[in-house]
Amino acid sequence: MALTIYGDLISGNCLKVKWTADRLGIAYEWIPVDVGAGGAQTAEFRRLNSAAQVPTVVLEDGRSLAQSAAIIIHLAEGSELIPADPYPRAKMFEWLFWEQYSHEPYIAVRRWQKLQGKADEALDPNLLVRGNAALARMESWLAGSPYLVDGKLPLADIALVAYTRMAHQGGFDLSQFPATKAWIARVESELGLAPLYPCCHGRAPV
Amino acid sequence: MALTIYGDLISGNCLKVKWTADRLGIAYEWIPVDVGAGGAQTAEFRRLNSAAQVPTVVLEDGRSLAQSAAIIIHLAEGSELIPADPYPRAKMFEWLFWEQYSHEPYIAVRRWQKLQGKADEALDPNLLVRGNAALARMESWLAGSPYLVDGKLPLADIALVAYTRMAHQGGFDLSQFPATKAWIARVESELGLAPLYPCCHGRAPV
Repeated sequence: MALTIYGDLISGNCLKVKWTADRLGIAYEWIPVDVGAGGAQTAEFRRLNSAAQVPTVVLEDGRSLAQSAAIIIHLAEGSELIPADPYPRAKMFEWLFWEQYSHEPYIAVRRWQKLQGKADEALDPNLLVRGNAALARMESWLAGSPYLVDGKLPLADIALVAYTRMAHQGGFDLSQFPATKAWIARVESELGLAPLYPCCHGRAPV
Repeated sequence: MALTIYGDLISGNCLKVKWTADRLGIAYEWIPVDVGAGGAQTAEFRRLNSAAQVPTVVLEDGRSLAQSAAIIIHLAEGSELIPADPYPRAKMFEWLFWEQYSHEPYIAVRRWQKLQGKADEALDPNLLVRGNAALARMESWLAGSPYLVDGKLPLADIALVAYTRMAHQGGFDLSQFPATKAWIARVESELGLAPLYPCCHGRAPV
């Protein structure tokens, strides 16, 4: 049995898993879960992941694993995507945890609410403030470094680029962050992705 | 130069680092940072961590590292606190990321706002709902397992117990979660901590 990925292509968290598997040449079956229609809330899905979140994977041996960052670490362990030296390795973990705590809850959440049709006036103003603070922190780092860790593409860039390249769909103005825009293009090129910004405002991300 | 930990003992995220270092017998200097008084917002502190968050550590070689989970992974790498087998190791990461995304932002945030004197009516009702959902998910797991991963104490338990044992300070009723309460006592005993619940309502956690 190959790896099975339960995911929704509209979700950056799911795309992280797809891109990591693609990059590593890992074969998988993709099972679409329509998050917007409650596809992760069914009893059947909750048996795979009691947190009712995508992505969730079922490994070759039938055991399941959740949390996008935990999944990509598991898939990439021992590969060039994870630095072997302890310090860059630790910095990679620092970015992965920072993304889930200080970036995704603002940028991805604001994007999701806008995609769901929520009016700007109804959005929590904190989402824009905190999301811009996250982008400013990335900009400050990327002004001096081509990638987030160790001068080359590690897992951290795959994880961080997912929602950063969609930030305009959340109403964030990426033109204020030129080093981040250049980094997005660099990572998209490394991953073989079509550029998402600025040509594709509003389109579904792939 | 020994490890330096910049932290605030009121913060569960900082205690995770302290407990991990203590458990592993790692010597460190603890530099108190008063978060409530803006101690992490100073220019001096931002030079150590541009995200202006505690805990932040300075390693023996003078390089800094942030994000509690990244720090404890770095300290514990190669020790018995991190499972060597790939699947329990991945499940440990799953819990660590889940804690930072689905547990801490509700339980720790509600506790912090209450400790700061915010009235219950002024708290976002979502904090209680989501925090209780997080506790219910832990309860469901812990009803069938003494620890979160692999039947023994790994890093995941150290990370999760930090704010779970303080949940009553955030207005969460731990008596509804008996398996979680028993697990708290088990981990406190393993770590040599004085029991925090239910005897110490309102006391500063140590």
